[in-house]
Amino acid sequence: MALRAPYLLFLGDAPDKLAAKTANGIHQWRPDWCLGQFRLPDCKTDLGIPDMTLEEARAAGAETLVIGVANRGGRIGEAWREILFQAVALGFDIAAGLHQKVADVPGLAAAAAAKGVTLHDVRHPTESLDVGTGGPRSGKRILAVGTDCSVGKMYTMLAMEKAMREAGLKADFRATGQTGILIAGSGISVDAVVSDFISGATERLAPAHDADHWDLVEGQGSLFHASFAGVSLGLLHGAQPDHLILCHEPNRPHMRGLPGRALPSLKECMALNLQCARLTNPDVQVLGLAFNTSALADAEAHDLMERTGETFGLPCVDPVRTGVGPLVDRLTAKG
Amino acid sequence: MALRAPYLLFLGDAPDKLAAKTANGIHQWRPDWCLGQFRLPDCKTDLGIPDMTLEEARAAGAETLVIGVANRGGRIGEAWREILFQAVALGFDIAAGLHQKVADVPGLAAAAAAKGVTLHDVRHPTESLDVGTGGPRSGKRILAVGTDCSVGKMYTMLAMEKAMREAGLKADFRATGQTGILIAGSGISVDAVVSDFISGATERLAPAHDADHWDLVEGQGSLFHASFAGVSLGLLHGAQPDHLILCHEPNRPHMRGLPGRALPSLKECMALNLQCARLTNPDVQVLGLAFNTSALADAEAHDLMERTGETFGLPCVDPVRTGVGPLVDRLTAKG
Repeated sequence: MALRAPYLLFLGDAPDKLAAKTANGIHQWRPDWCLGQFRLPDCKTDLGIPDMTLEEARAAGAETLVIGVANRGGRIGEAWREILFQAVALGFDIAAGLHQKVADVPGLAAAAAAKGVTLHDVRHPTESLDVGTGGPRSGKRILAVGTDCSVGKMYTMLAMEKAMREAGLKADFRATGQTGILIAGSGISVDAVVSDFISGATERLAPAHDADHWDLVEGQGSLFHASFAGVSLGLLHGAQPDHLILCHEPNRPHMRGLPGRALPSLKECMALNLQCARLTNPDVQVLGLAFNTSALADAEAHDLMERTGETFGLPCVDPVRTGVGPLVDRLTAKG
Repeated sequence: MALRAPYLLFLGDAPDKLAAKTANGIHQWRPDWCLGQFRLPDCKTDLGIPDMTLEEARAAGAETLVIGVANRGGRIGEAWREILFQAVALGFDIAAGLHQKVADVPGLAAAAAAKGVTLHDVRHPTESLDVGTGGPRSGKRILAVGTDCSVGKMYTMLAMEKAMREAGLKADFRATGQTGILIAGSGISVDAVVSDFISGATERLAPAHDADHWDLVEGQGSLFHASFAGVSLGLLHGAQPDHLILCHEPNRPHMRGLPGRALPSLKECMALNLQCARLTNPDVQVLGLAFNTSALADAEAHDLMERTGETFGLPCVDPVRTGVGPLVDRLTAKG
């Protein structure tokens, strides 16, 4: 599964920037793929790229209409359906990461088949997968792990890809969730595969590669999240990482979605991830820590990262506030 | 999902006893549910219960035809299809744990719907599941964990159910795989659910119960199996066990399906399972060890179990060779 760029980003009737965060992510990390945005009259956010009609975008070369907006429940809005049919008729592929499949919009799959275009529901894997083997494979891999869900794993790994490429390294982000897949143009929603195939899906996603090539595998969940730890462990084994980056949001009051349940300490989170990762890569090590310090003032954030870095003898960064330079420096032996 | 007993066990053209191991398991653990067996002329095995035609079994009260035989690849034999249609026409439900669904036999689902009977493909969960929460719940639970796949978890927990009931305890086996489901008459194939729902499926399977009630949750895989550990971890968190039983087959040369990959030590397997299980039950403990010593001579087996028991200060049994009495005694404070 690979999406065809360039994209027209569909923002629909997004009530605010947060509702269009997928579109924002795609535009931030893959600006060259984003020809324009398509907004309905009620749309309250703006990516700052050209507004285009479907016809204008198609004429400019857009290949895929990407649904970059999510509304409550991940449904496909009534107001969107006519647009989707028009897009198919104009020869667009459509890509979406919603719970509800665009392929389930009555009549749309048939229209797409008749036109010869593809509907990509990236949250719903369609590939036939094998179980993982854990067998050693060439190439190098880095995996983002976390104390919790939604602590910045995707952002960290996209920042790593950018910085590593700028440093002359061969690096590819490997997406394991729907937003990451829409940004990367390919990937597998690991939390949506049948559970027997979690590690196998990850092996497929980041297969053997050149010895000097880095796959940067987006993590999911946390070994300490009572809802999703199975996904995290299968991903950890399947990724066979040489390095882990431990992602964390300081001051989070409880595990996401589980009030009253405390986050693990950085030390125990690091130790358990290393212990489990050794099953498929005995040489795994922690490259560093990536914090989301957006809730902290600048001085407080820097102080915390400095103290944490000293505690572990590892770089501790905030990909937004400081960038990931110190992590990349460790890979290039400058660190 | 609950199967309707009693059963007629379909052995088909099973070439040997191993091919009919599902039927053997059902007959061993639920003899009262097994009215008879249905064998095709080429069948080379015998459960020692009455051979019945479909008509005879139906007249005797059989409600479900259970496919108790597996052939290569888990396919539905050509020779079986006519029987399945006849069974549906006579008002049987059909239950199977094969890779190929009986519901996918052309025309069979329509015939079943027309007749008002149910096709149970127990390897393919159809329930709408929620994600797990890890929230504490009443009742007590025991989970079988293992150094590897196929080390006797299901057998151990069925033996525990029998022995605990004989000791006057309230105990129910909770099946997490297809054979266990056919034996128990209900359950969820946890390795076949979408990976986000592993722990949620297990919470559904063994929900809050009376304070003096025991759910005996069949385990799957191993935290040390590179293919399936994610399933095992989600199951461990979802089961929220008060006690673990560590299952193991001594002298196994390598992890099942993974030549060259050694089994973990009992000590590290016990430690990691306890550490991870504490996330949802801080008071979890190991009840004892259950070995499959079928490859050892009697003296050697007993010596090994005695030494292992002393090493860990816990009972070490073989459910077949010694029974699980010492494990049950620990629960009833006789141990």
